Amino acid sequence: MPTAPAPPNPTAAMLVIGDEILSGRTRDANAYHLAGELTRVGIDLREIRVVPDDHDVIVDALDALRGAYTHVFTSGGIGPTHDDITADAVAAAFGVGIDVRDDAREILETTLAARGMTATADQLRMARIPDGATLIGNELSGAPGFSIGNVHVMAGVPSIFVAMVAALLPTLRAGTPRQSREVRFEVGEGRIAAPLRELAATMPELSIGSYPFREGDVRGTNVVVRGTDPALLDAAVTRLEAIRAATT
Amino acid sequence: MPTAPAPPNPTAAMLVIGDEILSGRTRDANAYHLAGELTRVGIDLREIRVVPDDHDVIVDALDALRGAYTHVFTSGGIGPTHDDITADAVAAAFGVGIDVRDDAREILETTLAARGMTATADQLRMARIPDGATLIGNELSGAPGFSIGNVHVMAGVPSIFVAMVAALLPTLRAGTPRQSREVRFEVGEGRIAAPLRELAATMPELSIGSYPFREGDVRGTNVVVRGTDPALLDAAVTRLEAIRAATT
Repeated sequence: MPTAPAPPNPTAAMLVIGDEILSGRTRDANAYHLAGELTRVGIDLREIRVVPDDHDVIVDALDALRGAYTHVFTSGGIGPTHDDITADAVAAAFGVGIDVRDDAREILETTLAARGMTATADQLRMARIPDGATLIGNELSGAPGFSIGNVHVMAGVPSIFVAMVAALLPTLRAGTPRQSREVRFEVGEGRIAAPLRELAATMPELSIGSYPFREGDVRGTNVVVRGTDPALLDAAVTRLEAIRAATT
Repeated sequence: MPTAPAPPNPTAAMLVIGDEILSGRTRDANAYHLAGELTRVGIDLREIRVVPDDHDVIVDALDALRGAYTHVFTSGGIGPTHDDITADAVAAAFGVGIDVRDDAREILETTLAARGMTATADQLRMARIPDGATLIGNELSGAPGFSIGNVHVMAGVPSIFVAMVAALLPTLRAGTPRQSREVRFEVGEGRIAAPLRELAATMPELSIGSYPFREGDVRGTNVVVRGTDPALLDAAVTRLEAIRAATT
């Protein structure tokens, strides 16, 4: 009996929200983390966007991305202060209401109680959840993220973002993980461009990237092949090693 | 005599081109570098996008961004191999031809000659420049970047990207640098959200961001104020210090 072909992998975009990235104050770490995790589970990350803390800009980006990809993952802007406007922008994008929700408030109050605190009105802002959303828990903070439609809203603080991604990803349909193999050449890209082009043409199922590097006096190239079929990847590595033997 | 108001700062987007960022293999460094440099010269970075090595996707992103901002800076995809498709995509976006250009070829051949090499046909691909573009030199590689219209095309290798940005920025109109001041609070965001909101409302010319951190048992918040008027920034810091004194 023939095996049905695997369905295409889900696709994704990441939306990083935060003036501090665009001003150069902070180097984003969340997109890099998510990219690796999505590759591991077979969800194809197709685009990353970084936008400022601006309501209309966030709404426009959400609308563009959620229409184009299976999933949109956001980071940033869900804290208690005036510059935390992501939840409202998501509610606006979906045209739904937003208010403090009992389950989110309970998580928040329990977490604060463990530190001997009660929630201020501002901290309660973190329990405002768009109507119809599902919470994304995490063990580090009392402020949950949430999913609504195909948009997954997570914290900007890297440790909390990591915890939320870990909670969220197992709930999404996984695809066929894209694996990669790397072959190191101690010659510059220009010397191997022709055989690489040929290899890419004969193995269109793989993506073949070449990344020049310099280590002291050595100008080299790392060639990375990516794909979902391990046998094909192995065949590509064998071909690359033959190219290397012929070049050196 | 009243001073004429400064013209608004130029705006910018960065377009990072490369499968290796989206797969999580490589953590982008160029957007972070550019963000800091643009802040320094008063060009407001409003958006960062990362897209794959895909001709049509690159053309669409270029068209969207170059219409929306004063400048678009790209990194990646200008090497000699089959996956280096940025120059062609830029030519397509502008509807102009592209071919090996004598001045670019000369730079390339001079650089290779210094290493005792002659250019292969593939290396010559790096001297292909869209019609009407201006070269962006750099001291590290023989492959120049280029500017066409409001799009500035630079290398993905971080050291070369840095060199090209250093060559390019002095040629662009600078704006009024946005400065920032930071005040550290050793309390969580929720405790200072109300006075921060008030401060933000009374100083609408400033952007006021709050960034929670955790160091051991300390949950704290760094508050960053950004703006172009040093006196106003100093006044905001004085207000923040008063808030801090009242909170501790």
